[in-house]
Amino acid sequence: MTETRTESVDLLIHSRWVIPMDPARSVLPNHCVAIRDKRIVGLCPSSDAGKLYSAAAEKHLNSHALIPGLVNAHGHAAMSLLRGVADDLPLKTWLEEHIWPLEGEHVSREFVYQGSTLAMAEMLRSGTTTFADMYFFPDEVARAAIDAQMRVQLASPVLDFPTIWAADAEEYIRKACTLHDDFRSSEFAHTAFGPHAPYTVSDAPLRKLSMLADELDVPIHMHVHETAQEVSDAVAQHGNRPLQRLHALGMISPRLLCVHATELDAEDIALLADNGASVIHCPESNLKLASGFCKVAALQQHQVNVALGTDGCASNNDLDMIGEMRSAAMLAKAVADDASALPAMEALAMATINGASALGMSADIGSLEVGKLADLTAVDLDAINCWPLHNPVSHLVYACNSSQVSDVWVSGRALLIDGELQTIDIDLLRNQSEDWQRKISGN
Amino acid sequence: MTETRTESVDLLIHSRWVIPMDPARSVLPNHCVAIRDKRIVGLCPSSDAGKLYSAAAEKHLNSHALIPGLVNAHGHAAMSLLRGVADDLPLKTWLEEHIWPLEGEHVSREFVYQGSTLAMAEMLRSGTTTFADMYFFPDEVARAAIDAQMRVQLASPVLDFPTIWAADAEEYIRKACTLHDDFRSSEFAHTAFGPHAPYTVSDAPLRKLSMLADELDVPIHMHVHETAQEVSDAVAQHGNRPLQRLHALGMISPRLLCVHATELDAEDIALLADNGASVIHCPESNLKLASGFCKVAALQQHQVNVALGTDGCASNNDLDMIGEMRSAAMLAKAVADDASALPAMEALAMATINGASALGMSADIGSLEVGKLADLTAVDLDAINCWPLHNPVSHLVYACNSSQVSDVWVSGRALLIDGELQTIDIDLLRNQSEDWQRKISGN
Repeated sequence: MTETRTESVDLLIHSRWVIPMDPARSVLPNHCVAIRDKRIVGLCPSSDAGKLYSAAAEKHLNSHALIPGLVNAHGHAAMSLLRGVADDLPLKTWLEEHIWPLEGEHVSREFVYQGSTLAMAEMLRSGTTTFADMYFFPDEVARAAIDAQMRVQLASPVLDFPTIWAADAEEYIRKACTLHDDFRSSEFAHTAFGPHAPYTVSDAPLRKLSMLADELDVPIHMHVHETAQEVSDAVAQHGNRPLQRLHALGMISPRLLCVHATELDAEDIALLADNGASVIHCPESNLKLASGFCKVAALQQHQVNVALGTDGCASNNDLDMIGEMRSAAMLAKAVADDASALPAMEALAMATINGASALGMSADIGSLEVGKLADLTAVDLDAINCWPLHNPVSHLVYACNSSQVSDVWVSGRALLIDGELQTIDIDLLRNQSEDWQRKISGN
Repeated sequence: MTETRTESVDLLIHSRWVIPMDPARSVLPNHCVAIRDKRIVGLCPSSDAGKLYSAAAEKHLNSHALIPGLVNAHGHAAMSLLRGVADDLPLKTWLEEHIWPLEGEHVSREFVYQGSTLAMAEMLRSGTTTFADMYFFPDEVARAAIDAQMRVQLASPVLDFPTIWAADAEEYIRKACTLHDDFRSSEFAHTAFGPHAPYTVSDAPLRKLSMLADELDVPIHMHVHETAQEVSDAVAQHGNRPLQRLHALGMISPRLLCVHATELDAEDIALLADNGASVIHCPESNLKLASGFCKVAALQQHQVNVALGTDGCASNNDLDMIGEMRSAAMLAKAVADDASALPAMEALAMATINGASALGMSADIGSLEVGKLADLTAVDLDAINCWPLHNPVSHLVYACNSSQVSDVWVSGRALLIDGELQTIDIDLLRNQSEDWQRKISGN
């Protein structure tokens, strides 16, 4: 018998490039990632792997970039069923005459489970491994995520007024706490509080949520400063800007995720920076709804953590984080009037490690580093639109399309193999989508 | 023998939806297009086709939208070989320290032929059938287009200063006229004059081009008002804005294609509207280079024809007109502060019939109408990111990605079948791209 000093691992993934999104922002050619018991246990040049590891399975990605699984930091997954049902309308008409009536008519436990599953199928197919979600029946979203073995952070909705999910702020908060208790030991479903927006939640429930978030150690996920109108209405009504009001309530902290934040002045940015809050930038939703422009470069100059979200399919209309990275990188330059703003590598950071940080999950996900959960995405760069290949990071952000995502792992388990979903029944999903299509639009 | 009253045609293409981009902006479910001798000879419900036509061949597209072949109205095709070689840099640094030196070192007849072929492969794969091109060695671009049987309009470059293509304005113009003569009977290669920009071409050659364009009945394709800097420099130097200067030279006419036009005041817009010039909008290039924002909705309100272009791969970095439509539709809303600006159908018009009009080719291409050349693109809407399918036009613009383009015809000949290119050797192209990659970036 020969003496062996190799370490046993479950899986070795070799890739033409590994782009781990470590603090050094490395781009590692011909490297591999070693995985054991759901976690990353090593990264090394593929040429050294034989000396270091004996692997139960190996995967070879000869023309791919292997990156951390993408983190979609804001959305309303079940709204995938409303994709394209109403476009090109002013925000008020769109919401009041289309989206809200349709939600009132159709949203149910079944709508949320099936719509969230459709959204997860699209997200996994395009490289997302973790998503933050704010919608009714978050327990159904949790169930769908656990069934698909995909990671979610549920921002349990809180509003002042009744919806299908709860009658008043007190009931929303009680249900959010129950959700937290029910899924506290889940590998896939995590929880947060989701007060909808400053203009839909009053001071008393916001104070209570702030206290509970500290006690339970969870984030607060909130639409904040989505439009100029929201800010001017608040000034007229309360005498201060929404972020000033949230600050007075003690809510601006590293727990706070401010979604959209298109309307920020210098004091708003200083408030976010001084108190360590994150911004979730949703560039395509902001453009499509004409909500305004988020000052991404200015936020980053002030060390505010900016993550990336697609928002829901009713206002995007896809859940493609690769497209969203490109939109973010391009738009940030025009908004800053500076072509060097948000370079490709930092757009990729927004879609990975910054998202993990915003969700309070960066100890476990967001980069390919030893000790983290093995959430990975492989993108095949051997495509006409990626020839020649002078720079893989540039191509991931500026030239790829999401059909080039080939493989996705969550906790070391392959959920997408060569473009095929492994935990979601695609034929069932097509049939369900067609049923909802008939019910919703009659098409 | 039975009497037959059916009309013989070469090809019948049946599609789940035909979206012809006719003036009525029809969306025709379960229709077919009949093609004979390169041209469209009929459109009808598929259920009527048997009574009307006997076809030598039939194609069934059961889950597709069949649209006019996309028209990419501005680009520099051969720059595909410089894709991703320099990003995220201020415009001046990008041009002077990267692009121009690389062009000086590498541009040759071989570079242009091979780079243009790579670009055409990407464009055909993503549904484009006609492109306008401004680059050195336009005769090589013509040769590449004829070899691939794809349609091009060559904007033959004109500058005041010497480049690899010509020594002075006189020689550029002489070569442009030769190009026109050489390809005047070509089915695929058409010509135009391409004075680079107001700041690189002086009055005398512009006057001459204006006269020649009238004589030869061809368009003038020019970068105009790309940045605020260009306009303020011109005011400082000449005492008037570039468009005012072009107007004084008699150049603003239906022949003029103003590329970019990000910096337009009310008088500029009136000048374009009153004189029937077109604007070629390149939203992704404008964003990525922080050039500014084109006021698309305002131009359209003044009945200015706005077409769409990707620009070159060095500043985009892809040639994907489906992505460009989405960027245009989304950005126009945010710029106009109006979510109803540039609805999906009008974004599709920008990428088809408006492009054909700008290029002076709308008698032949740009819509699926009887008598026009059979340039068509099929997009398969049976994809997770297009479920449910409430609205095919919305999905084409807001949810599709270009990998869903399945089939493309130019003059009735299939250049892409089920995603496979028919007139370009993809293995040769990969090898050539790898060679250029080694030469240019050493990767």
